Amino acid sequence: MEKRLLLTPGPTMVPPEVAAAEAQPIIHHRAPEFIPILDRVQEGLQYLFQTKNPVVVLASSGTGAMEAALTGVCSPGEKAITVEGGKFGGRWGEIADAYGIKKVPVDIEWGEAVQPEKIKELLEQNPETKAVCITQCETSTGVLTDVKAIADVVSKTDALLLVDAVSSLGAEEMRTDEWNVDVVVTGSQKAIMLPPGLAFVCVNQRAQERIQKSTSPGYYFSLKTYLKSLAKSSTPYTPAVSLILALDKALEMIKKEGIENIWARHARLSRAIQAGCKAIGLELFSKQPSHVVTPIKVPEGVDGAAIPKILRDELGVTIAGGQAHLKGKIFRIATLGYAADFDVTTGICALEIALRKLGYKFDEGAGIKAALKALT
Amino acid sequence: MEKRLLLTPGPTMVPPEVAAAEAQPIIHHRAPEFIPILDRVQEGLQYLFQTKNPVVVLASSGTGAMEAALTGVCSPGEKAITVEGGKFGGRWGEIADAYGIKKVPVDIEWGEAVQPEKIKELLEQNPETKAVCITQCETSTGVLTDVKAIADVVSKTDALLLVDAVSSLGAEEMRTDEWNVDVVVTGSQKAIMLPPGLAFVCVNQRAQERIQKSTSPGYYFSLKTYLKSLAKSSTPYTPAVSLILALDKALEMIKKEGIENIWARHARLSRAIQAGCKAIGLELFSKQPSHVVTPIKVPEGVDGAAIPKILRDELGVTIAGGQAHLKGKIFRIATLGYAADFDVTTGICALEIALRKLGYKFDEGAGIKAALKALT
Repeated sequence: MEKRLLLTPGPTMVPPEVAAAEAQPIIHHRAPEFIPILDRVQEGLQYLFQTKNPVVVLASSGTGAMEAALTGVCSPGEKAITVEGGKFGGRWGEIADAYGIKKVPVDIEWGEAVQPEKIKELLEQNPETKAVCITQCETSTGVLTDVKAIADVVSKTDALLLVDAVSSLGAEEMRTDEWNVDVVVTGSQKAIMLPPGLAFVCVNQRAQERIQKSTSPGYYFSLKTYLKSLAKSSTPYTPAVSLILALDKALEMIKKEGIENIWARHARLSRAIQAGCKAIGLELFSKQPSHVVTPIKVPEGVDGAAIPKILRDELGVTIAGGQAHLKGKIFRIATLGYAADFDVTTGICALEIALRKLGYKFDEGAGIKAALKALT
Repeated sequence: MEKRLLLTPGPTMVPPEVAAAEAQPIIHHRAPEFIPILDRVQEGLQYLFQTKNPVVVLASSGTGAMEAALTGVCSPGEKAITVEGGKFGGRWGEIADAYGIKKVPVDIEWGEAVQPEKIKELLEQNPETKAVCITQCETSTGVLTDVKAIADVVSKTDALLLVDAVSSLGAEEMRTDEWNVDVVVTGSQKAIMLPPGLAFVCVNQRAQERIQKSTSPGYYFSLKTYLKSLAKSSTPYTPAVSLILALDKALEMIKKEGIENIWARHARLSRAIQAGCKAIGLELFSKQPSHVVTPIKVPEGVDGAAIPKILRDELGVTIAGGQAHLKGKIFRIATLGYAADFDVTTGICALEIALRKLGYKFDEGAGIKAALKALT
């Protein structure tokens, strides 16, 4: 028997009840019985996003939703500030390039977060900016950006704030309407506890007005088309029916637990991971750590690539390694989505075993003890 | 208890073993155990497409794959012949418009098929044409286009042939390589027996060369990016893991049955539907009918909208109505994908009940008798 644990920043584990919902018989997407499901899902998504505005559901990965968002609000030749402090922030810039949107890239050292003052300064230097693109949690570095503070700056200008919350929505506090965030993008395979395959774009009134005017080319990702269908409780193209049925179940679970409790759970679990790691002498990588994923520096003298490999191949616990130039230099543990207290202790147990095997010297058991203390 | 039958041209019914595969625990897409699955799926797709060329897997609906194909091989300002003989043919033209690709639309009366001579003539009049876009089975009219004959014409020119086989691949004969078809597009929710959410684009050498040169904007649907990842048994963005696991199972079933047997089964079932309908005095709508879906004219004096409604709401059998100007004028029965002999007889039984209820006069039982005869 193989019992595996997925402690990765997405795809994450799917609750059995959600997997069962996904395996239900297919409902035809134009049949009347699909309408109340779409409506209920919309209501659940608005709760998750903390918004009264429409949330577009796309059959695509999160990247597709980023593309829909940026091309939806910017036309070719228009200016967008793209904050690039990791692999996913860089994607905003790549999408801008692909469509001839003039990017103003903000290079942030990997591991650090952009500060609101920097955005303010750039907006003053570039008053014609149409969009500011940020990443709430940069999955490659675990860094959390202060969305609320940046929204305070951007909402006072004509620029729209676009937030890639692909890995963070549901794990980190996000009050879309209250904070005046114009566009929020996320994916299904993170805190929402679904398999990958769905992506979401929430657009406020300001963004909807701009979407009507955008001249960026596009067909499948045209938010104009989706908003029109959504108003009629419909979808323009065949939706991913089985994933929508699973989403319906997952949103029911999310509502039952309560969004603030879910944010608190993610905070509690990630703090326990941090405590466990620190107790055995490991160092956190991020200067402004999120509760989505915890990147840890590989200790001196230890083979960085071997840590996730031993965990996965010998202990059945999948964590993530470092990406790009951080390969072998950090490893990343996430307790995202369908994760609870004993997933933390299992993760730290497995980490202690692997580190011992790799010759790292530490006070054995201290990690588990600290994690447990943080949890209870 | 409710036992429902889906006799629609997509989404279609999913075999229980495929649904079970979809509900398996999530595998991380960057874990080594996902590589053999991607490789096996690629091999199975090549068998399904009857090709040795790469088949790109997208997390999107079929429309996304059409967009990837057309923007992949055509740059803005270049010319594409778009055959528009129904709702889905029209989509080729809409995508061309969205990207500034100059379309040469071929308006075909709904219910009729484009003839190879017409394509030949248009290519002679427009020798600079870069792509010819056709629909193998136009789902809105049930019409089958002779792909082989058109490929014979197009492959002698510099234009590429793009075939929307979204509803037809696996149901209708398609010998991609042997027939010299450059690009074939399909979706998961038809003959492949999966839920919607995956789409596929098969590109031959000629198309791959053109893809390297296209200047159409695009990011998520850039085939260049997917082909590069595919060569390394990888995916550029998080794939729809649960649907890929389901696809792996479905392709195993397809290989076991044999593609020619599957084409023959679709032919046999649709001929039985046709025979059953004709025997009770109904008339087929299509001049060149496919085995994907059978559109039937609503008989004089019968409420056309009521036929699918009674079938669905009172008898648990979902069929499709007419689309656009054919609403209320035709209804469409499909035995696509996971369908067998007794799905045909159940469909005809339900149709006889509904028609009787609507006051249509016919020789009761004659439809079932004829369908059974055609099957055995």
